[in-house]
Amino acid sequence: MAREPAKTLRDHFAYRFGEAPPAHDPSGDDGTLSYLARRRTHRKYSERPVPPALIETLAAAALCAPTKSDLQQRDIVIVRNPSLRDGIDALFPEDKWIAAAPAFLVFCGNNRRQRQLHEWRRRPFANDHLDAFFNAAVDAAIVLGTFIIAAERAGLGCCAISAVRDHASRISDLLGLPDHVFPVAGLTLGWPAGEGTVALRLPLAVTVHEDRFSEAGLRRRIDAYDLRRADLQPYARQRHTEEYGTTTPYGWSEDKARQYSKPQRADFGAFVRSKGFRLD
Amino acid sequence: MAREPAKTLRDHFAYRFGEAPPAHDPSGDDGTLSYLARRRTHRKYSERPVPPALIETLAAAALCAPTKSDLQQRDIVIVRNPSLRDGIDALFPEDKWIAAAPAFLVFCGNNRRQRQLHEWRRRPFANDHLDAFFNAAVDAAIVLGTFIIAAERAGLGCCAISAVRDHASRISDLLGLPDHVFPVAGLTLGWPAGEGTVALRLPLAVTVHEDRFSEAGLRRRIDAYDLRRADLQPYARQRHTEEYGTTTPYGWSEDKARQYSKPQRADFGAFVRSKGFRLD
Repeated sequence: MAREPAKTLRDHFAYRFGEAPPAHDPSGDDGTLSYLARRRTHRKYSERPVPPALIETLAAAALCAPTKSDLQQRDIVIVRNPSLRDGIDALFPEDKWIAAAPAFLVFCGNNRRQRQLHEWRRRPFANDHLDAFFNAAVDAAIVLGTFIIAAERAGLGCCAISAVRDHASRISDLLGLPDHVFPVAGLTLGWPAGEGTVALRLPLAVTVHEDRFSEAGLRRRIDAYDLRRADLQPYARQRHTEEYGTTTPYGWSEDKARQYSKPQRADFGAFVRSKGFRLD
Repeated sequence: MAREPAKTLRDHFAYRFGEAPPAHDPSGDDGTLSYLARRRTHRKYSERPVPPALIETLAAAALCAPTKSDLQQRDIVIVRNPSLRDGIDALFPEDKWIAAAPAFLVFCGNNRRQRQLHEWRRRPFANDHLDAFFNAAVDAAIVLGTFIIAAERAGLGCCAISAVRDHASRISDLLGLPDHVFPVAGLTLGWPAGEGTVALRLPLAVTVHEDRFSEAGLRRRIDAYDLRRADLQPYARQRHTEEYGTTTPYGWSEDKARQYSKPQRADFGAFVRSKGFRLD
């Protein structure tokens, strides 16, 4: 990282978001806001193991997060078995993150339990449409985000592995996920080795709207963000140079447009349908 | 609430989850775990206003959460305009939560920006399938969960309003959400008045799995959970008694099976498609 973030909450936000960080510094803050402002993703971990009981405690804490209508449509799979870990890791030959991490979890949406309740209580299930998938996915995502915060506050480092969606069917088989249960994301976990990365974010004027959605100044702000990225955290390599050549500056917008110019997870919908979901 | 939760982390978990709470009490905990263990949803707020700068600060903190592949496919709309608030509130004649809360926000998935990048950078967008909707929904959910934690740690109370999905099209119009931007959930926010509710959770043996998904003892555990609910937090009324009569005990499984025995949000998929998403 080219520049170290400074010390006040406002400084952390200024580094993260660039222009116009919020000015408020709540007197009652217990450290959560400045933790969030400076939090980092960690992909490298020390050899020190993470106690199983700590992982279970973090899972419990995460499951205290809100859940849509009290439906609790999310589960956590803690993957401990080394050969199972290796089997999942082998799906990602380019990244050896999963086998190398002290701990690995998979956060799942679970709409199966709800359907079981209907069977047991003999009530018809009248909501076999997109909602069934969407609500479970959102519940799982909230628990994932909460787990990350609990873990980081306990001194651990994490990296969410959304690439599990690239091999959802195979991972589902390995974990024995039944119909209407699907992986939303994995998570590697360990005691951090190294600095980690403060992910720079789009200016708040782009992502926070008042009353009505606004795109005022959008392109100008993204151009400025691209330049900040290229300056402070230059990309190590450009994507798909064989087709697109090299671009200068190579910013966020160019990187993301190149990334999604190639099909990814085109079979994810087929997987979700194969799990019994209708997406009408 | 019939019984007050006790004081240690393990006691908080025992109240929340019932059987077999995790035994680990991390020495390094800064209070985040015990906060999560005892956190409560608040639907009633004092008259004291929430400073706009504080809401913006919380939004900034929430947007520091992880985002799939750095795509940042989520936005926050802070709804301040009173007539706009009333317009949204009027969609929910049974609950006056939104108008009564000091602050109201809507968390949105945004796959529009990604498509704009492709247009600006002249790269084809090759991922017009379920992934586009799913990734944005998950990103928005993580930011929602993170916002709630930041707000609660600053002393505020929150209630996520997933019912915005019941009127997604109308709310989308009121907030001026363009194609490929959709509401995931609303959130009411204010300084708590009253105790709030510690939502009891399914036993961890049901929702946390080791290595492979397991339903060992599932029905027995849900039966026990139903009894705990009926004992500690009895439902104020039973649903759809005109059709199903009354049941004793009336637990979680009966309540949820009755709730989803009637169609809800059957038009949500049509709304999402009307926003330009293909869900293939």
